[in-house]
Amino acid sequence: MIIQLEHDIQDALLSDIQKEVAALGYKATEVKTQHQHYLVAIGKSEFDIRRIGHLDGVRDVHRVSDAYKLVSKKWKVGTSKIDVDGVPIGAGHFTMMAGPCSIEGEEQIKSILAHLSENGVKIMRGGVYKPRTSPYSFQGIGMDGLKTWYKCAKEYGIKIISEVLAVEQIEPMHDYVDIYQVGARNSQNFALLHELGKVDKPVLIKRGMSGTIEDLLQSAEYVFSSGNERLMLCERGIRTYEKAYRNTLDLNAVPILKEKTHLPVIVDPSHGIGLRRFVSDMALAGVMAGCDGLIIEVHEKPEEAFSDGQQTLSFPEFSQLIKACMETFAFRRRLQS
Amino acid sequence: MIIQLEHDIQDALLSDIQKEVAALGYKATEVKTQHQHYLVAIGKSEFDIRRIGHLDGVRDVHRVSDAYKLVSKKWKVGTSKIDVDGVPIGAGHFTMMAGPCSIEGEEQIKSILAHLSENGVKIMRGGVYKPRTSPYSFQGIGMDGLKTWYKCAKEYGIKIISEVLAVEQIEPMHDYVDIYQVGARNSQNFALLHELGKVDKPVLIKRGMSGTIEDLLQSAEYVFSSGNERLMLCERGIRTYEKAYRNTLDLNAVPILKEKTHLPVIVDPSHGIGLRRFVSDMALAGVMAGCDGLIIEVHEKPEEAFSDGQQTLSFPEFSQLIKACMETFAFRRRLQS
Amino acid sequence: MIIQLEHDIQDALLSDIQKEVAALGYKATEVKTQHQHYLVAIGKSEFDIRRIGHLDGVRDVHRVSDAYKLVSKKWKVGTSKIDVDGVPIGAGHFTMMAGPCSIEGEEQIKSILAHLSENGVKIMRGGVYKPRTSPYSFQGIGMDGLKTWYKCAKEYGIKIISEVLAVEQIEPMHDYVDIYQVGARNSQNFALLHELGKVDKPVLIKRGMSGTIEDLLQSAEYVFSSGNERLMLCERGIRTYEKAYRNTLDLNAVPILKEKTHLPVIVDPSHGIGLRRFVSDMALAGVMAGCDGLIIEVHEKPEEAFSDGQQTLSFPEFSQLIKACMETFAFRRRLQS
Amino acid sequence: MIIQLEHDIQDALLSDIQKEVAALGYKATEVKTQHQHYLVAIGKSEFDIRRIGHLDGVRDVHRVSDAYKLVSKKWKVGTSKIDVDGVPIGAGHFTMMAGPCSIEGEEQIKSILAHLSENGVKIMRGGVYKPRTSPYSFQGIGMDGLKTWYKCAKEYGIKIISEVLAVEQIEPMHDYVDIYQVGARNSQNFALLHELGKVDKPVLIKRGMSGTIEDLLQSAEYVFSSGNERLMLCERGIRTYEKAYRNTLDLNAVPILKEKTHLPVIVDPSHGIGLRRFVSDMALAGVMAGCDGLIIEVHEKPEEAFSDGQQTLSFPEFSQLIKACMETFAFRRRLQS
Repeated sequence: MIIQLEHDIQDALLSDIQKEVAALGYKATEVKTQHQHYLVAIGKSEFDIRRIGHLDGVRDVHRVSDAYKLVSKKWKVGTSKIDVDGVPIGAGHFTMMAGPCSIEGEEQIKSILAHLSENGVKIMRGGVYKPRTSPYSFQGIGMDGLKTWYKCAKEYGIKIISEVLAVEQIEPMHDYVDIYQVGARNSQNFALLHELGKVDKPVLIKRGMSGTIEDLLQSAEYVFSSGNERLMLCERGIRTYEKAYRNTLDLNAVPILKEKTHLPVIVDPSHGIGLRRFVSDMALAGVMAGCDGLIIEVHEKPEEAFSDGQQTLSFPEFSQLIKACMETFAFRRRLQS
Repeated sequence: MIIQLEHDIQDALLSDIQKEVAALGYKATEVKTQHQHYLVAIGKSEFDIRRIGHLDGVRDVHRVSDAYKLVSKKWKVGTSKIDVDGVPIGAGHFTMMAGPCSIEGEEQIKSILAHLSENGVKIMRGGVYKPRTSPYSFQGIGMDGLKTWYKCAKEYGIKIISEVLAVEQIEPMHDYVDIYQVGARNSQNFALLHELGKVDKPVLIKRGMSGTIEDLLQSAEYVFSSGNERLMLCERGIRTYEKAYRNTLDLNAVPILKEKTHLPVIVDPSHGIGLRRFVSDMALAGVMAGCDGLIIEVHEKPEEAFSDGQQTLSFPEFSQLIKACMETFAFRRRLQS
Repeated sequence: MIIQLEHDIQDALLSDIQKEVAALGYKATEVKTQHQHYLVAIGKSEFDIRRIGHLDGVRDVHRVSDAYKLVSKKWKVGTSKIDVDGVPIGAGHFTMMAGPCSIEGEEQIKSILAHLSENGVKIMRGGVYKPRTSPYSFQGIGMDGLKTWYKCAKEYGIKIISEVLAVEQIEPMHDYVDIYQVGARNSQNFALLHELGKVDKPVLIKRGMSGTIEDLLQSAEYVFSSGNERLMLCERGIRTYEKAYRNTLDLNAVPILKEKTHLPVIVDPSHGIGLRRFVSDMALAGVMAGCDGLIIEVHEKPEEAFSDGQQTLSFPEFSQLIKACMETFAFRRRLQS
Repeated sequence: MIIQLEHDIQDALLSDIQKEVAALGYKATEVKTQHQHYLVAIGKSEFDIRRIGHLDGVRDVHRVSDAYKLVSKKWKVGTSKIDVDGVPIGAGHFTMMAGPCSIEGEEQIKSILAHLSENGVKIMRGGVYKPRTSPYSFQGIGMDGLKTWYKCAKEYGIKIISEVLAVEQIEPMHDYVDIYQVGARNSQNFALLHELGKVDKPVLIKRGMSGTIEDLLQSAEYVFSSGNERLMLCERGIRTYEKAYRNTLDLNAVPILKEKTHLPVIVDPSHGIGLRRFVSDMALAGVMAGCDGLIIEVHEKPEEAFSDGQQTLSFPEFSQLIKACMETFAFRRRLQS
């Protein structure tokens, strides 16, 4: 059960509501996000929901039978709109995020920003902290690189999404990113998710390598219930027995997530299939499956990229893809109307 | 190496070619299909391919480095056209096959045929022999049902695709089916595949539940090298750890198969995701990923179907889907031109 | 519900029992094996089981809530004993089956028979029909090889287990094998399983590459309910994402199968892990997990074997392993007493 | 290449060695652990290894072709001995760690400590920070619980292993744990692994839910190369398609890890199979597969445990198991001698 409370509810009223919830045998968690104030109540007894709805201080109350609550679509119809400082995600908008796997330096940053700008892309992806399997692999250029990137991106009015690997990185990164990305390997790093719940920037959470749909939604519930409503989910390929491609991009996740949650759903075909020549087909299939946006790896010279070159599009490939994506998104909307 | 031989090549010439191939240290398999005559030669030594190409009786010769040979795209560009008695599959055509999981009886057959006919569908699917996990489950209505179905379908000019479970069923089914279907559980039933190579009807092979892309292509190679070139492959969902849906429809298989083989690629979203309300999204995503056709479960009253009702579309759902598929196929073609 | 009937029950009595079962809303399947006569009844209503137990012609009646019935341990405690023409399997016996992946010829057969005989092994494995992914790979030496093998094995008093790939092979193989093996790829080849139910020789069924425990038990139910009670199950490794070994030998299957079924459970560590130097560790772990026997690949010169050499033990390795297995089996029994 | 340096090597000598390594085209990382001083050098050129071995300040040099280096068995034969404040792990010792899933309170702690003590167990496991899929589930009793546990454990001379979920927890937990545990969900939390490299306590790293053998070794390499040599690896079940048990305990990992690394290998059958009645069989199979120890969930009243009761042994079950484990470990040693 989700109880939406009045803004600035008085402590006495809140306390009364909490008592009533407890009397029903429910355990309530108070959640105060940057936008709203909730009680999330978990229990099993049957009762007339109006018993809560009629209480003073209650704006609305919803039964939510799912294991996750605040991210469920059972209480919030449609797709939430995430406002990234003027750039909308979800709620009928199609969002393209693109950029290199790793941020490499000023020259690379500028060439990509110029290309994105020409193609109308408003959010640039890139890693400055890289989660690498081996401790001896390139670990990213760190904060200095992020600051340079930020300075350049501002000139183009382009927003930044970048992966955060650790709680200690949240604060230093804060003034230089517009969206925090949680990678597949940290998809159930609950300490990190909890801290990101306290931040006033949107968060994109990638599905774990063998994360279930339910795991992903519960990870999002961690962030939401810690205070941050501005969340997106990202399908990026799962681990299966198949060796013909890097990961198995699971597009089934798209319609299922769209049914289960009001959060926008992004698809990452670059990691998802992991082979450049198939990225566009899977991107367009993802749009057709109903996603709200894509996150794509692009580089002026993919073969010289510091990491993931084999799955990174060149500039001409990307220009063609974004045009196709916009048309496909519009086509899908016409089909459904 | 694939050596295409002249039609009606003389034995002496063939023998000369075989000797030359053997001299190169290659092991040759003679393949005589209903359309052509080949030698498939496997070996490792390097040599000038013209040494074979210049021989009398040789029409053409191609190096094929893949483990599978005759189904590879390395020697045959584009998608093969399968002619199902006037109905084309592949080679730029979009094919919809639809029908119930199980054929149940005349009334059901007729209601579905009428619906398919109205919607321009030219191939009806349906099982008369059902591969059921439990021996106590409904095993299909068998040959009598197939004969009734055939009689009715003929009136509508609609072709029949139906699953063959065993070598012994090939012959009795022969006069009543237009396409033999090999199910996921028989995807590596090599005896069955071998026998289907001798048949003059097209064959659709489904990917095994944990079949790799390479496994599927090799299964097709069994049929082709046994004499039957008229083959299609079908992605129908693989087994993964995820429990949110029945199978994990693996659309990555579509662009990869389209790159590796000249055979048409069909997608089965009904088994693929296994939940009715997501079938259409996955079907359209499959079209966008580049498949040559779909195979869909449809029933007048899905909730009363003998099997698989939970993944079967109703008539109105199907009508809407086929219209959307045709538009999406056309849209994709425009995008690519 | 399993109803054990009196031997030579009169038709009238049987008919009465069937009527009573039908009156309860249950659907009954009559099963006549080489040993017993049953009715397997499936339904949902609750009733006093003595209502059936009291009927004339009924020897015993058992509720079995599992989806599989006759192979369930719910009605038959302990492990069934399979008598392979004097060699016992199950029921407290430890069985070693060993031999090459492929039968190659008389010399190889004899060298292995001599080695098995010296080590007290009473059942020799070997393939004469090989299920090979590629149609161009060695497909086995066929019936001639089997006949040679049979002649030689008889001299040593050693039994033969060999894989049957197709219904058409059952009859020709019949006089030359002591146990039919169903391979992983045919684990849900229901036509084959059904025909093997009519045969008077034991059958070993391997788990499919992505077969569930339940799938395997249902496959066994196919054979049992078609008339053949002499069955064994075999864990041989499943497909997972891990690439460090060929398959993932799933020893969890051993205690779980031993709980769920009265059929003997055999472990195949050779295919299971697929790397020679780890076969012994996994074999002993399998014995300790509670299996009734092992099936192991052994060859005088593994590196020259026609197939699977990389997972095949040499003679000295095998001699050491079988000694260790016997000791481990005895040790485990002492631990449990 | 691993270059072991002299203790207290002079800066000038180190610099000379680094120059020589660079001259070979190798990239060197300096690693200073609590025990030794290394250069880990990565490169591709071929050269006479004595060229490095002869340099002043070099104690020893080893080629290591694996992607991981310091944890590889290529330079360090046998199993490393981890000294947990007087309790040895590895190097021929068998180690049992046992305790509840969650630490619940003083009464529970004492009852379990007494039981472990009676059974000769020297390391107690238990979670005070629990990684729970849902934010609304019990999250552990935290530091207060840990302090109580520490106080009680000290009286029994029993060591503590407990999971650390976040970098911020390392320092506060430091004085109250003897071994830090990294859970499956944090198996690739590289920031956490890196920080644990700076700690003077042993670390046990669990394999990720879909972690490969190579992933696990690389995670260990993170800790080792950050300065902490006292490491253990733990197999705890992977995610597969099978639903008959919670996870698929992958005992194949045991002999493979024992071959690839000198680190001790621990098996967790409680999470591994996740069903109480099968834990003992899998534990003994694990010992037989060659592991150096086990980690087992035990509780006085499993059915009342705060978490994971369904996979937790009762006291009598545990007493029987530990006796069997010790006998099995001794039996295996005899077999191998």
